[in-house]
Amino acid sequence: MNFSDRLRSIQRQNNSLLCVGLDPVAGNMPASPGNDRHSIITFNREIIKATQDLVCAYKLNLAFYEALGEAGWSIVHRTLSFIPGDIITIGDAKRGDIGNTAALYARSLLDDYGFTATTVNPYMGTDSVAPFISREDRGAFVLAVTSNPGARDIQYLPVRGKPVYEHVVARVKKWNTRNNCGLVAGATKPRELKRIRSLAPGMPLLIPGIGAQGGDLKSAVRFGCDSGGEMALVNAGRSVLYASRGEDFARAARAEALKLRDAINRYREEFF
Amino acid sequence: MNFSDRLRSIQRQNNSLLCVGLDPVAGNMPASPGNDRHSIITFNREIIKATQDLVCAYKLNLAFYEALGEAGWSIVHRTLSFIPGDIITIGDAKRGDIGNTAALYARSLLDDYGFTATTVNPYMGTDSVAPFISREDRGAFVLAVTSNPGARDIQYLPVRGKPVYEHVVARVKKWNTRNNCGLVAGATKPRELKRIRSLAPGMPLLIPGIGAQGGDLKSAVRFGCDSGGEMALVNAGRSVLYASRGEDFARAARAEALKLRDAINRYREEFF
Repeated sequence: MNFSDRLRSIQRQNNSLLCVGLDPVAGNMPASPGNDRHSIITFNREIIKATQDLVCAYKLNLAFYEALGEAGWSIVHRTLSFIPGDIITIGDAKRGDIGNTAALYARSLLDDYGFTATTVNPYMGTDSVAPFISREDRGAFVLAVTSNPGARDIQYLPVRGKPVYEHVVARVKKWNTRNNCGLVAGATKPRELKRIRSLAPGMPLLIPGIGAQGGDLKSAVRFGCDSGGEMALVNAGRSVLYASRGEDFARAARAEALKLRDAINRYREEFF
Repeated sequence: MNFSDRLRSIQRQNNSLLCVGLDPVAGNMPASPGNDRHSIITFNREIIKATQDLVCAYKLNLAFYEALGEAGWSIVHRTLSFIPGDIITIGDAKRGDIGNTAALYARSLLDDYGFTATTVNPYMGTDSVAPFISREDRGAFVLAVTSNPGARDIQYLPVRGKPVYEHVVARVKKWNTRNNCGLVAGATKPRELKRIRSLAPGMPLLIPGIGAQGGDLKSAVRFGCDSGGEMALVNAGRSVLYASRGEDFARAARAEALKLRDAINRYREEFF
């Protein structure tokens, strides 16, 4: 099954466009009953157990795990082992390097870790992305418009009347011969999100930036979905992970994920 | 001492613009006397011992170490511990993420590993680069024109009569308030390298792509150096590491590094 179909299948099965960002910070772990702190592995496992029927995907930003030093590698492995096989796992690494080096990154993320999909940076062009999209069942979300303030510096530069990111979208559409390409479009930029959806009507869009970054959920759903109200992945991280800092963190995470999923689904009913 | 001065100092001390790329591949290790294969740690140590008076920098592409799985982290640490403190160490990771996440990558590369400098991708703009250039003694080489074929896809798009990469150069000049910014410009694109040097007359330029990728050494030196024949870092990887696949690999690596350093210096004398 190609990546696009895999995504659609799990979105329907769990009736959810929610992607939970598993980006834990060691110092933020909730207290455990014994008063020491939960380990990140335990924390991730509990979050996954509490939310796995409410999501279409989990996204791990590799920076949070690289920050853990030597332990990071096995914590990613262990975390991925807790996630049911039909749920999409995204290695959010934003890699980009020359072809033979990109192939090493792709092998590490897709084979060694075993992520279903990755995020990649388009600046180095075709051969830097190719290894991430060589298999139809593995996807890559290419950065188009990111959710941060610096997005405007390069991504918005005007090229023949269109911003750079629209040229990125055009490239990605060419690369999408296996139906396994997606795009990253920040929820903080609803106008650009709308434009990107109109340029790539059927493509999976990974949408970060709701919650702490200030993006609006309603417009993320309204402008991010395809014409059937699917194929958007709305990412939420901190608001779910740290819904409570106490012993009830998993229950609180579930309540927050449920609230988000249902809010997304209400907007889907309203607009599609 | 700011990064730019650190670089100049070691280039003068070792009379060298050569940067050796320590990107070993497990399957390519030379045979040891006992007929088993050298470990990557031993290999890197021997290469460093054999070349450290001939280089201004070592560059480790993190993809090669991430490909080693769990062992990668400690192999990077051990490798860096063999490099004398006055030689520049470049963590070639090409990272780029939103501000708070980029800060985690920067901490991992600059504090945890302790690299002197990194490579970064400009696509996500100012806040994605800021954490890598917040200390004057640590540098960042921002991708301008890369050495691979895909470089043309995005980097060359015309914006107000100038390619995207020239706008990147303009940005980096603004970021360079601490004299710790540099640029990546591939040796496979001599015309663009010349243009970049004219736009950023004093900035360190990291120049990959000679050797296996087909870039020309003469034009790399001629167009890459500043007006004093300095501030270019000419990277060579495979041609040095695998100068011999036998027991004499370290001696052969030294001979190749010496040959390259001297060839670079002859061009410096010719043009500066």
